[in-house]
Amino acid sequence: MSAAAPALDQLQRHLHTTRLLGSISSTLYYDQNTVMPAAGAPWRGEQLALLAAQLHERQSSDAYADLVAAAEAELDGTAPPQRRRNLQLLRLELNRQRCLDPALVTALARAQSHGNAVWQEARAANAFTSFAPALRELIRLRREQAGQLADAEPVARSPWEILAQPFEPDISKARLTELFAPLAAELPGLLESVAAAPATAPAEPHAVPEPLQEQLCSELLDSWGYDAARCQRSRSAHPFSCTVGPQDFRITTRVVEGQPFSAFLATAHEWGHSLYEQGLPRGDDHYFPWPLGEATSMGVHESQSLFWECRVARSRAFAERWHPRFQRGLGSDPWGGAFGFWRALNPLRPGLIRVEADELSYSLHIVMRFELELALLEQGMPVEELPDAWNRRIKELLGLQPATDAEGCLQDIHWAEGLFGYFPSYALGHLISAQISEALEREIGSIETLIGAGETAALQGWLASHIWPHGRSLNAEELVERVTGRPLGARPFLSYLRAKVGQLTGAG
Amino acid sequence: MSAAAPALDQLQRHLHTTRLLGSISSTLYYDQNTVMPAAGAPWRGEQLALLAAQLHERQSSDAYADLVAAAEAELDGTAPPQRRRNLQLLRLELNRQRCLDPALVTALARAQSHGNAVWQEARAANAFTSFAPALRELIRLRREQAGQLADAEPVARSPWEILAQPFEPDISKARLTELFAPLAAELPGLLESVAAAPATAPAEPHAVPEPLQEQLCSELLDSWGYDAARCQRSRSAHPFSCTVGPQDFRITTRVVEGQPFSAFLATAHEWGHSLYEQGLPRGDDHYFPWPLGEATSMGVHESQSLFWECRVARSRAFAERWHPRFQRGLGSDPWGGAFGFWRALNPLRPGLIRVEADELSYSLHIVMRFELELALLEQGMPVEELPDAWNRRIKELLGLQPATDAEGCLQDIHWAEGLFGYFPSYALGHLISAQISEALEREIGSIETLIGAGETAALQGWLASHIWPHGRSLNAEELVERVTGRPLGARPFLSYLRAKVGQLTGAG
Repeated sequence: MSAAAPALDQLQRHLHTTRLLGSISSTLYYDQNTVMPAAGAPWRGEQLALLAAQLHERQSSDAYADLVAAAEAELDGTAPPQRRRNLQLLRLELNRQRCLDPALVTALARAQSHGNAVWQEARAANAFTSFAPALRELIRLRREQAGQLADAEPVARSPWEILAQPFEPDISKARLTELFAPLAAELPGLLESVAAAPATAPAEPHAVPEPLQEQLCSELLDSWGYDAARCQRSRSAHPFSCTVGPQDFRITTRVVEGQPFSAFLATAHEWGHSLYEQGLPRGDDHYFPWPLGEATSMGVHESQSLFWECRVARSRAFAERWHPRFQRGLGSDPWGGAFGFWRALNPLRPGLIRVEADELSYSLHIVMRFELELALLEQGMPVEELPDAWNRRIKELLGLQPATDAEGCLQDIHWAEGLFGYFPSYALGHLISAQISEALEREIGSIETLIGAGETAALQGWLASHIWPHGRSLNAEELVERVTGRPLGARPFLSYLRAKVGQLTGAG
Repeated sequence: MSAAAPALDQLQRHLHTTRLLGSISSTLYYDQNTVMPAAGAPWRGEQLALLAAQLHERQSSDAYADLVAAAEAELDGTAPPQRRRNLQLLRLELNRQRCLDPALVTALARAQSHGNAVWQEARAANAFTSFAPALRELIRLRREQAGQLADAEPVARSPWEILAQPFEPDISKARLTELFAPLAAELPGLLESVAAAPATAPAEPHAVPEPLQEQLCSELLDSWGYDAARCQRSRSAHPFSCTVGPQDFRITTRVVEGQPFSAFLATAHEWGHSLYEQGLPRGDDHYFPWPLGEATSMGVHESQSLFWECRVARSRAFAERWHPRFQRGLGSDPWGGAFGFWRALNPLRPGLIRVEADELSYSLHIVMRFELELALLEQGMPVEELPDAWNRRIKELLGLQPATDAEGCLQDIHWAEGLFGYFPSYALGHLISAQISEALEREIGSIETLIGAGETAALQGWLASHIWPHGRSLNAEELVERVTGRPLGARPFLSYLRAKVGQLTGAG
């Protein structure tokens, strides 16, 4: 920082160490999910709990509060706005940490761990009733937590809104309701029109051998600027992206039996997350390890992964460029040409499972979860009514009926761990990706044309200059408005889907 | 521990957390050497330094000293001897930590890091003179450290002996000189007799393709009880074994171009280290995380890895059992039968590089390094004289003359990091392995016969009951005497070598 701001310097050193500890935790997480043998789990749990306790202490102690206060006192009229915002974000987070009763934090950690364990069994046994008490307790504790946190909020927020803040800062129920209404209104009709058209993708996917999938994933990353000096790709049970240090980026993928494009598309998706992290404003010391060097929201993060997965890797131009590689690797063309290959990359077939959903129905899964979270947390819906409410609404939105709760309200892990307020970010990612794609196309031309010309570097360059360098200096909606000139809305996403559906169900 | 020993309980909780932090550090080390991208190094360095500082604080603070003192005060005549020894070992280590001037610790860390960097360049450029100043400074600082540590030693020890204590507790120069004298006296003659005999191994090794090497390493581990639920094998630039948690054991290997058995033998070696760690007394809470749950010395650790590498994997019976697998995998037999294969596994050809040395010449490398360390640290030999002294002595012992310092006194990393007192453990490992092998054979029969009958589990069982469960309750020499009924000596090792050389140079 500067010689004139000793308190700020001290605060920065404190935050630097906090960040070191946080990234140690990330490294353990990465190790745990890629190579750790199963029997290592209990000890790993203790290691992570120790680091979590250290992190909590560093982020809520009186000593830290004094550091923040001293840095605030140093601020004068000449302080740059970014410094001011850094301190505001730190103050908000500090106040939140200090509002919480430590006994509640412990009770929640225990209930989350218990919830996860009970959920695993309940899902396997398809027995919602055995999970219900754990869920009820989690809702009670999270409501209590929201009550304690309310004092720290700069504006009045409902319990659900308070719980959603860590994922989507400044979001409100009213705004989400407004953004999601067009999705609930228009997507079911679009889905019906697809159902009426001839099948777009083969019902039984053509197999792609594992070594070929691996090789194509590597080629994809290489063509998108993967740098082995700063990145590492491993295998894990569930794909994820994680940042282990300012110059150390990891992604993981997996090959799924019967899903020939799963690894390929997951690679594109996780690489999109990683590119955002790699492009965050870290070069300047001013940004690191301050809040402004972080991703601004889960929705924006998801917009970056979805851009590379859906706008690029699932695009028609991309299918045309990559079809020959798949064909060459297989030694045959089970898709009967590039158009068939593109269709296979884009199955449009509503399903009951969110994580397997296509681009059309995915957001409807989210709309429903958002509604149900509000019902459970704020509208007094008894936990016992969840399965019926779920099944009724999924039928309305997707026209499907779960045969069991395992493929209904027991399918996601989020609620089992008390995670409420997270789901909307997934759908926001689709909306944001579509809206910034429109802005990108106004500025540098059609995405399809650029991909067709092999210019994915131009796409990356545009994101690198327009999206990534903002970090948390703008929140998600401010960022979208700054970049696109308009408030975030659902129209670009719906337009994009309508056009894509038209092409996919057309004659090719 | 017990309700009657509250201070001991508190101490155990403290040590438990210390162990958690240490194992976090090990996890970072493992990650660093297996998957971390190169650009992650500076941040990883900061993470490790942070953990090292926390560990040092936990192991030297007044609060910790009070805990140890309180636990000592609780000891009465009824305390079990193991508890007493735990506290003695903790007290000794605490006193050592508290003798050290923190300024010296910092200066040493800096000099070690500097020494490593300068050494890398000097070795590449074959320029000892550019490394000499760094080495001189490291010797000065390590002598200063030994001076500070002298106050903590329970008996009078020379500077070199003090520096060797962390690797080989209770070792003395006199004892090492006594143990090594027969090696220096007899091994050169044995080497000459080998040189006079026809070549035992092909000068140009037959290639074994990398996937086959990988597969055979896996088969080897599977046949030796590798349990994927508790173990993980990865690739790294240099093979190592590391314990990441009480139920989480890692080993790494590498495939070396032109060395078809390197990965196979390294797998055996590292697995030997890991088996010892896996067999340490941890089951009982009493032992963990106390000192008695740790390996007793580097020499004993090395004896376990060398047992599996040299006594088992390089044995004639083992060669006979595994030759068909290599042959099947290759689809040919370049060794012309099992005897040729065994000879290829046991090249006897003295070389200038320690890490590539055979069983005969390896210990002579160590004897020389031990002599030179004493000369540098205690006998006032100027650093400038090191290259000449090295070249003179290696000529006497191995009959070879380094063409450059890179294949002479610049070959090892140890001194470049100020590591003095470590080398002897490597040779002690050979002596210990040979002596306990004799005891094992007296009790359960010939190792060759057991291997020939596929009974490696019996070997493992014997080590598991005689060696591993002692942890640090006995030091290395006490352990050997307890197990073999005799003081440690060089005779078993020399007898073993003579017999092996006779067979290898014989007609088959």
